[in-house]
Amino acid sequence: MRVNQKHYKTIWMEGHNVFMIDQNELPFHFIIREFIDYQGICRAIIDMTVRGAGAIGVAAGYAMALAFIEESKTNNTGLARQARQCIENTRPTARNLFYATKLVYEAGLIGWEHALAKAEELAIENITQARNIAVNGNDLLKDGMKVLTHCNAGWLGFVDWGSALAPIYEAHRNGKKLFVYADETRPRGQGGRLTAWELQHEGVPYTIVPDNAGAWLMSNKMVDIVITGADRVAANGDAANKIGTFEKALIAKTFGIPFYIAAPSSTFDFVCENGSQIIIEQRSKDEVLWQTGLTKDGRMETIQVCAPGSDALNPAFDVTPADYITGLITDKGIIKPTKKDIFKTLLNKETD
Amino acid sequence: MRVNQKHYKTIWMEGHNVFMIDQNELPFHFIIREFIDYQGICRAIIDMTVRGAGAIGVAAGYAMALAFIEESKTNNTGLARQARQCIENTRPTARNLFYATKLVYEAGLIGWEHALAKAEELAIENITQARNIAVNGNDLLKDGMKVLTHCNAGWLGFVDWGSALAPIYEAHRNGKKLFVYADETRPRGQGGRLTAWELQHEGVPYTIVPDNAGAWLMSNKMVDIVITGADRVAANGDAANKIGTFEKALIAKTFGIPFYIAAPSSTFDFVCENGSQIIIEQRSKDEVLWQTGLTKDGRMETIQVCAPGSDALNPAFDVTPADYITGLITDKGIIKPTKKDIFKTLLNKETD
Repeated sequence: MRVNQKHYKTIWMEGHNVFMIDQNELPFHFIIREFIDYQGICRAIIDMTVRGAGAIGVAAGYAMALAFIEESKTNNTGLARQARQCIENTRPTARNLFYATKLVYEAGLIGWEHALAKAEELAIENITQARNIAVNGNDLLKDGMKVLTHCNAGWLGFVDWGSALAPIYEAHRNGKKLFVYADETRPRGQGGRLTAWELQHEGVPYTIVPDNAGAWLMSNKMVDIVITGADRVAANGDAANKIGTFEKALIAKTFGIPFYIAAPSSTFDFVCENGSQIIIEQRSKDEVLWQTGLTKDGRMETIQVCAPGSDALNPAFDVTPADYITGLITDKGIIKPTKKDIFKTLLNKETD
Repeated sequence: MRVNQKHYKTIWMEGHNVFMIDQNELPFHFIIREFIDYQGICRAIIDMTVRGAGAIGVAAGYAMALAFIEESKTNNTGLARQARQCIENTRPTARNLFYATKLVYEAGLIGWEHALAKAEELAIENITQARNIAVNGNDLLKDGMKVLTHCNAGWLGFVDWGSALAPIYEAHRNGKKLFVYADETRPRGQGGRLTAWELQHEGVPYTIVPDNAGAWLMSNKMVDIVITGADRVAANGDAANKIGTFEKALIAKTFGIPFYIAAPSSTFDFVCENGSQIIIEQRSKDEVLWQTGLTKDGRMETIQVCAPGSDALNPAFDVTPADYITGLITDKGIIKPTKKDIFKTLLNKETD
């Protein structure tokens, strides 16, 4: 996508170095970070310099490749194996991360050049899948529609295009007039910060809404369709996504509003039978109790926004049961959230 | 309630001056503000130095009384009538405000002493009603229960005790072990700031949760009962309360968890037939886009938390239809949210 008239990916490799847009600095500062080893990328995944299922997957793939390069240079046998564990320990919920480490690790056993090629292949696959999601999802969006989205499943969550926002960008470029309600998405505010920033740069009309406004919006017929991304989709169609997604799905179902999950094949976990098997990451209470932002005089500042001495829960994701999902917008088409359709379309396998 | 071992009301009168705990400074600073005229109280209602349906009502009553005193002192005929309009223009949703201005205005037509006495009577009535809600609601709370609440319907929202939190305080003092999940309640964060601060001072175990976590909490059976306050209850039992309340009611219904609204008689609008007639206040987008809090070195600071240049919607309330409400905890008992029960219990009138 374009930032200040220049085309950027969220994450890319030049030589043996990895570059990322620092998503903790957005929307206030546009800063590119450079990484020279897998440890740096692990830290970037943990502190959410890079976030979003797709982008995390590609970052993990690059990290795995850098580990093989280091193992080969230093003759430190076992380094890549240890690195894989380190990478897989960064964040538990996004399926794409484990998909990437597995494939790049297996390629790296043949040689580091193969690991590097596989990591690059996954980055390209990520763009291709997002592009296909854009085209497939575009069919759902009619001129004049009002779309509600939660968190950021835009191009910052992938290498380019995104998942939930990709069909919106495609429809907008095709001349359809859309309006987007971007949920703020507390506690980290990825909707108010990243989705709003992306939509602004793409010229798509939008407004930020507090997460609390979902039932008000939908009961007042202000939303035609809800589209969110996913961090992991189970074999039966249950989908883990940013905390609060299940609330929106539940409200949408109550008011008969279609609720779609957009996700590439790499987000599907075919061995995970249902949502109850998905591990939900619990993050620091400080993300709830403190907020970081820009002061009027342009300084980044962190402030306490809750009663001092309080405890807070911070589950990062929730699971939306398949029953609440109208359809899954994938790179291979829009499908029903059933094991039969998921296996048939994504794995070309029949199930009962 | 007690703050640092001393008993305080949220708002009170000494002589002809009105005193309030400044709720914009909480939970970081405990500051008492003094008001000498109705204009000052109007500003305090608008900027939310005082907030919460019950406390707003009492503030409005005091403001109305101060206007009559001023009218009498200055011989400025019509001042009280103008003042009433000014007071009623501050905030549109809370029923208690209009209840108070009407009664104090009517008393003031006889003489300013009557206005003053009526305003004081309403403040005492507010405490009595809250105390009765505490006792009535206590019956619903069993030892070991986990309670979810939204926004602040505690003693800060009233003169003392509160509505939704009053039964919790009563049960806690009776030795029942309760645990409270306090919704953060974006955008103004009354849950994370005020409810958390109150519960801390009362010694009730609690944790703050992001508003987005409601479906996660309830689907994981972590909540036994939901209790919130209300700003206006229509004759049919539809209830307007802080934005996000309807979401919680909807989720609670889905998972079979009882959802109660606690509100004194003064919150009921018997001429408002249903929720669609309740005016929903739209507040400034800056409350969504900016956040105020305490820096690590103890300064109050306001920071931008969303993408600069963004627009935001900020509906302050939503309406929970009676169908989603298990019961109404009132000062006159726990009743079903039907016109029949509301009129019978609160007005002693039979309806069909």
